[in-house]
Amino acid sequence: MGKSAIRTVCKVDFDKPASEQPYLHNRWHPDIPPAATIKDGETVKIECLDWTGGQIKNDDSADDIKNVDLTRVHYLSGPFAIENAEPGDALLVEIMDVQPFEDQPWGFTGIFDKSNGGGFLDELYPSAAKAIWDFEGIYCTSRHIPHVKFAGLIHPGILGCAPSQEVLDTWNKREAELIAANKLDRDVALPPQPLNVHAGSADPNTKEKVGLQGARTIPGRPEHGGNCDIKNLSRGSKVYLPVHVPGANFSVGDLHFSQGDGEISFCGAIEMAGIITINFSVIKSGVSQLSLTSPIYIPGPVEPHFGPGRYIYFEGFSVDQHGKQHYLDVAVAYRQTTLRCIEYLRRFGYSDYQIYLLLSCAPIQGHVAGIVDIPNACTTLGLPMDIFDFDISPSAIPVKKLDMGRCAFETGKTEGEVVTTAGKNSEVSFGGGLNYKE
Amino acid sequence: MGKSAIRTVCKVDFDKPASEQPYLHNRWHPDIPPAATIKDGETVKIECLDWTGGQIKNDDSADDIKNVDLTRVHYLSGPFAIENAEPGDALLVEIMDVQPFEDQPWGFTGIFDKSNGGGFLDELYPSAAKAIWDFEGIYCTSRHIPHVKFAGLIHPGILGCAPSQEVLDTWNKREAELIAANKLDRDVALPPQPLNVHAGSADPNTKEKVGLQGARTIPGRPEHGGNCDIKNLSRGSKVYLPVHVPGANFSVGDLHFSQGDGEISFCGAIEMAGIITINFSVIKSGVSQLSLTSPIYIPGPVEPHFGPGRYIYFEGFSVDQHGKQHYLDVAVAYRQTTLRCIEYLRRFGYSDYQIYLLLSCAPIQGHVAGIVDIPNACTTLGLPMDIFDFDISPSAIPVKKLDMGRCAFETGKTEGEVVTTAGKNSEVSFGGGLNYKE
Amino acid sequence: MGKSAIRTVCKVDFDKPASEQPYLHNRWHPDIPPAATIKDGETVKIECLDWTGGQIKNDDSADDIKNVDLTRVHYLSGPFAIENAEPGDALLVEIMDVQPFEDQPWGFTGIFDKSNGGGFLDELYPSAAKAIWDFEGIYCTSRHIPHVKFAGLIHPGILGCAPSQEVLDTWNKREAELIAANKLDRDVALPPQPLNVHAGSADPNTKEKVGLQGARTIPGRPEHGGNCDIKNLSRGSKVYLPVHVPGANFSVGDLHFSQGDGEISFCGAIEMAGIITINFSVIKSGVSQLSLTSPIYIPGPVEPHFGPGRYIYFEGFSVDQHGKQHYLDVAVAYRQTTLRCIEYLRRFGYSDYQIYLLLSCAPIQGHVAGIVDIPNACTTLGLPMDIFDFDISPSAIPVKKLDMGRCAFETGKTEGEVVTTAGKNSEVSFGGGLNYKE
Amino acid sequence: MGKSAIRTVCKVDFDKPASEQPYLHNRWHPDIPPAATIKDGETVKIECLDWTGGQIKNDDSADDIKNVDLTRVHYLSGPFAIENAEPGDALLVEIMDVQPFEDQPWGFTGIFDKSNGGGFLDELYPSAAKAIWDFEGIYCTSRHIPHVKFAGLIHPGILGCAPSQEVLDTWNKREAELIAANKLDRDVALPPQPLNVHAGSADPNTKEKVGLQGARTIPGRPEHGGNCDIKNLSRGSKVYLPVHVPGANFSVGDLHFSQGDGEISFCGAIEMAGIITINFSVIKSGVSQLSLTSPIYIPGPVEPHFGPGRYIYFEGFSVDQHGKQHYLDVAVAYRQTTLRCIEYLRRFGYSDYQIYLLLSCAPIQGHVAGIVDIPNACTTLGLPMDIFDFDISPSAIPVKKLDMGRCAFETGKTEGEVVTTAGKNSEVSFGGGLNYKE
Repeated sequence: MGKSAIRTVCKVDFDKPASEQPYLHNRWHPDIPPAATIKDGETVKIECLDWTGGQIKNDDSADDIKNVDLTRVHYLSGPFAIENAEPGDALLVEIMDVQPFEDQPWGFTGIFDKSNGGGFLDELYPSAAKAIWDFEGIYCTSRHIPHVKFAGLIHPGILGCAPSQEVLDTWNKREAELIAANKLDRDVALPPQPLNVHAGSADPNTKEKVGLQGARTIPGRPEHGGNCDIKNLSRGSKVYLPVHVPGANFSVGDLHFSQGDGEISFCGAIEMAGIITINFSVIKSGVSQLSLTSPIYIPGPVEPHFGPGRYIYFEGFSVDQHGKQHYLDVAVAYRQTTLRCIEYLRRFGYSDYQIYLLLSCAPIQGHVAGIVDIPNACTTLGLPMDIFDFDISPSAIPVKKLDMGRCAFETGKTEGEVVTTAGKNSEVSFGGGLNYKE
Repeated sequence: MGKSAIRTVCKVDFDKPASEQPYLHNRWHPDIPPAATIKDGETVKIECLDWTGGQIKNDDSADDIKNVDLTRVHYLSGPFAIENAEPGDALLVEIMDVQPFEDQPWGFTGIFDKSNGGGFLDELYPSAAKAIWDFEGIYCTSRHIPHVKFAGLIHPGILGCAPSQEVLDTWNKREAELIAANKLDRDVALPPQPLNVHAGSADPNTKEKVGLQGARTIPGRPEHGGNCDIKNLSRGSKVYLPVHVPGANFSVGDLHFSQGDGEISFCGAIEMAGIITINFSVIKSGVSQLSLTSPIYIPGPVEPHFGPGRYIYFEGFSVDQHGKQHYLDVAVAYRQTTLRCIEYLRRFGYSDYQIYLLLSCAPIQGHVAGIVDIPNACTTLGLPMDIFDFDISPSAIPVKKLDMGRCAFETGKTEGEVVTTAGKNSEVSFGGGLNYKE
Repeated sequence: MGKSAIRTVCKVDFDKPASEQPYLHNRWHPDIPPAATIKDGETVKIECLDWTGGQIKNDDSADDIKNVDLTRVHYLSGPFAIENAEPGDALLVEIMDVQPFEDQPWGFTGIFDKSNGGGFLDELYPSAAKAIWDFEGIYCTSRHIPHVKFAGLIHPGILGCAPSQEVLDTWNKREAELIAANKLDRDVALPPQPLNVHAGSADPNTKEKVGLQGARTIPGRPEHGGNCDIKNLSRGSKVYLPVHVPGANFSVGDLHFSQGDGEISFCGAIEMAGIITINFSVIKSGVSQLSLTSPIYIPGPVEPHFGPGRYIYFEGFSVDQHGKQHYLDVAVAYRQTTLRCIEYLRRFGYSDYQIYLLLSCAPIQGHVAGIVDIPNACTTLGLPMDIFDFDISPSAIPVKKLDMGRCAFETGKTEGEVVTTAGKNSEVSFGGGLNYKE
Repeated sequence: MGKSAIRTVCKVDFDKPASEQPYLHNRWHPDIPPAATIKDGETVKIECLDWTGGQIKNDDSADDIKNVDLTRVHYLSGPFAIENAEPGDALLVEIMDVQPFEDQPWGFTGIFDKSNGGGFLDELYPSAAKAIWDFEGIYCTSRHIPHVKFAGLIHPGILGCAPSQEVLDTWNKREAELIAANKLDRDVALPPQPLNVHAGSADPNTKEKVGLQGARTIPGRPEHGGNCDIKNLSRGSKVYLPVHVPGANFSVGDLHFSQGDGEISFCGAIEMAGIITINFSVIKSGVSQLSLTSPIYIPGPVEPHFGPGRYIYFEGFSVDQHGKQHYLDVAVAYRQTTLRCIEYLRRFGYSDYQIYLLLSCAPIQGHVAGIVDIPNACTTLGLPMDIFDFDISPSAIPVKKLDMGRCAFETGKTEGEVVTTAGKNSEVSFGGGLNYKE
């Protein structure tokens, strides 16, 4: 009479390569066939692998991070056809829950090597590094970053509906133009990549097409959301997604136990495999009804919350570490803000790499403060004091250093490289926020 | 036996030009003489004019906004010498209260004309516009933006200690380099400007020096804070400021009844005259003790608070409105985010200019969400639903338009210009976050 | 064009006895003439004396507390006639602000002598005591209770509309019955008291009638609210009050800078004189429209807020300190809960009287937890840790006592009496929650 | 290398009577043998049946509620011996998580029949009633109370360490005295009851002793906590418990998906079976170190949170519904407060029984407001508006009734009895908060 257990529409298998599991895929393309059908109004469970499909291990070496194969990512679960969904509708996705697997209560945060992935601070911190996090209920701790414990603001890094062919073509065209114009010494976008493509249960022809055309999952994109990495899109949140193809073809993955605003180390959340419970409903003509160009969302009511007075806020400006003045460059400002926090926490005994990892995954607040006062953008970063088991407040002076151990580096190394001369050519390669140069 | 009324160290006079009041100044310079001395540990009241020194009137024309004289701004109160403060110390500034004047219970939000000040969306919305806000206790309302009422997150837009000559020289040098390199068709920074300089009670020689060297107050700067426009630096907040000169020479002004993250229309907060109550204390060697490169702060406990589920969050990406892909450009992303919100609210009958004003001054949350997923930065903007007296949630469809009246424009106009072909040359002039071009 | 300063409808005079000021009164009666008329929809300021009308001084002796004349209290401002208000309507009272007088930045918390007023713990702590609080903006501190600072949850202890003659008769009848049946050795209610009656600007005949019939202001009453002492009815709150007489005849007073749930020492809030800003509007037939038997209210958005994890919660049960089991007696449980907190804080060096004062006035949360599990009611008391400037958390062991000075007692005494044999006859005189005995 | 799945120390079996499962027990007694041993510092999972041991079914009849066998309750999991714990220590219990069983995503709220259990409002609402709740992730809904959905504030109703023989004797003596003195027409406490006793794995002799002496689990008790029914003792909370016997002998059960302050219908939480994850650590001499007479706790950071302005608060006073004045009787006041809320919500179409159920289990805030203003205690009840899917605010007038269906009653009935003449002899039987009469 009452409800029984909620239906699981997608199971993953830890004993089989991700690339061989038919309910997964790693590109965005309208032709990837639905893995299952879900009713309008139904609540289902969807299992997900971690975004790398199991490449990263629960150990004390960052070799796997250093050598991660980024042509394979992200392994998403789906796509799922939602009954009644048509192009022009909005799909209301209510996240009823996200949980790690009971027998896999752990996740990882990585700093990618500058030459394989990189991250927001890679000019200064180019080495690969890793922290493993253990989960006990709502809390996580890491043997690689001691004296820290916090409740997960658990969420999916990626969710979205499949692009139509037209939307996909738009993506490929505009990103190709950026790539073509790039004069930086780093990748600015990733074109379609047939290598290691996984098109779900597609037939070989379709799979080849997906490989040639399919959009990479790394960036979020305005037309459908995708890899938005919004830390507060957690339990209880409602997301309104534009539908581009019949059935919506919704996919989800990249589950995070926690993340900080910006996810600065790129592999920066606490990445995990897990189960997401979602209720789906279709809002007919929702795109026009809501003037929905990009997704909107309403957060859930169970976020971990600290009082406002339990945050230390750092301020940063668009003057880079070489003293160069940038013009309202928010990325430069936010990078400076993170560096201010690193300098602050370093006093307690943490290494810069540990802090870089921590700011990536702990529930830090990254705000745009002032964006109009030429030439300086100002951003702030709020660090919750209560995730530490010792007093980090400004009144805790003089500081007593603690033994903080270390995070994981590549085999044979006990510390990461710190490039103090980083970004000499800062106006070009390190500024961030750069358009391509002519 | 108990305390009597708190000492007021600076009174302003509404019947006298700001430029003639000796406790005010409008440049940053170490030689501006202290207006008063404050004890280490003392709490005082400081009166402030609005940032323009009274140029903007409580009326229904935006002519004053259009013709504002920006060489005069900001009129700051101070500087105040704090006993015991020496270079290398940190000055702990605890904001005990901020209030408007009882007999001036109003403020203004302006959109500057593109050719005189501009703002974050000036390529699309180039006209001058204004909204007047009436204060009743903690709340404000505007006859120019109906159906909105909210509690002020009241704060000073500017506070900081005077630069040393060395710090000042650094500022002037690096900003001059940016100006010299500028190839945009807009100002990227403002050099020292002797016109309309106000150096407090300085003698003529000093005043001339201040005019030639004194840093403009428009930008915040990492070395001392200044015009940070941090909306949460409100009642009860503690700010830790680096001290650069003996006595610290602290100044404050640009009081805001409320502001949204980014203060996007530049004159975007609810600007007001008022009284700030501050407790000062000196932390000896605080700069090294706290590794203090830029100010840090801890918010107070009385922020207006809504539950997380009472915000609608909009998402924006670094693809501009012409479909051009930018590389991790947070400013482009945040601009798109604000445009998504404008599209959403426009459905209820507000004009774009009204919404632009509202997003500038209401307590909206602007977050850096994802900043590493090439090529798209993702930002979010949280709009509190409870500031409206009607239901703006996504479930309120179909939408019923309300009569929203209009905001103030220049005399003779009833609406502002909307440039739909804005920023054609978007990679250069409209992208924001641009470095200067070579 | 814009609004000018808000109209003040009632000014108080500190140089004149409260009993001689025509805008004040100290009884509830329908015949007390309105002090002023307020428009439906208008916002006004109302000045208030402290509830005792100035009997308590800012000094270090509790003699004034010990000898307070309770026939005089509370001095309320009003009554105010609200245009359009008729019996059966609801009066919507929106509290726009509450502030102390700028030149009187202080308040007091008292423990009444057991023989003159008493309080919730008077069997244990029978002596008079006092703490003076100094206000600096949003914060208060006391020389009598060191190491504590907190933001005021500022509110009126009393507000309500005048009773009709019928309502008044009901009050007098039912309270007289309780008094007649009383067999306790203490007052259980206060009948009308002609001595020191203040009936505002009433003529002598009316004043005499008010003296004979007028309800005392000590208790709140269901029909109109009155002395509810609800700590969260603070800035931004909306209260819906039943109207009983034409014009509503609204009165307000007993302003509190802060209070804890229960206001346990009776004179337990931080009592102050001040100014309340209110917007009034009439809801026609609101009593039936809202099924309004007693007032309802919606709190404002600017309460001081701490995260849930920043409270220590104490638990108490309906077993009194003599080991006697009471039957679901919430008062006994709450008294035990406060005693648990006293025992906890005593370890840090505070005297019991200091803690009793503090729990009365600091923003502590008093919750009914379980009320059905015979025979034990369970209540909880949440103490915010962040009001102390040292660590009071359970992890702060072993405890280091601090020099806490002392609170004020009657002249010549340096400590209060502690009756450890208190309430031997506990089932009758100390149980609280007692009905009268037959 | 990393942690594997957390150890489960107690499994329950849904196919076997609760009374036959050796890891359960339903009395408090020092001689019940430990079900397992847990290390100091260890985190474990503990499975629990619902408090009735499965007597209540997921169906649409309240017959099972009406006929519930209360001699059997509560079935607790444990006791668990904690290594190192000795009398005088404190046991720190950190609740890492509470979850329902994945294949049993439902719970129940019951109103006991007045003649078998009763509840806080049983004089008015004497009939048995039931609502079944379905869980989907963090949210619950009920087919018996439509238009409501809320996130669970999930918690154990009962946790505590076993009493020593001395503590147990104290309990039995003082409760027996209350029973002996009882002249009410209802039970005031429950003595030891050998019928249906479950003493875990005790041998027959011990079991008989437990039956004769063992304390019932219905009430919480000051010496160890037990059935406190504190709704905020949820995920992430830390509880400090006094240890009375070697090994502490900790037990837990009575899991609640959600509860309102007071748990007014007695079976009033959303009762469920589930799994609790706990970390245990021993604080040596914690009882004296912390002056620990009764448990204290610190809530976790993930409570559902609404802004303060999203609650409607009802006020109640110690005047009962017959107009009788009670003396500072908080139970009378709280009962009146709940009745005010029932009157308010009734307008929307809910039956009184539906509201009574809802107030028992939804996260309502019950506060002691004023407890010293003779003769009226004042309490408040905060109802979160956002748990309803329609507008219940006072501005939603005139009200439009919705079809609310009905809750479950005993077979053959479609509505519950409402006794409008309830409690005529109110000073004795209905007043609540009564001590026993002489």
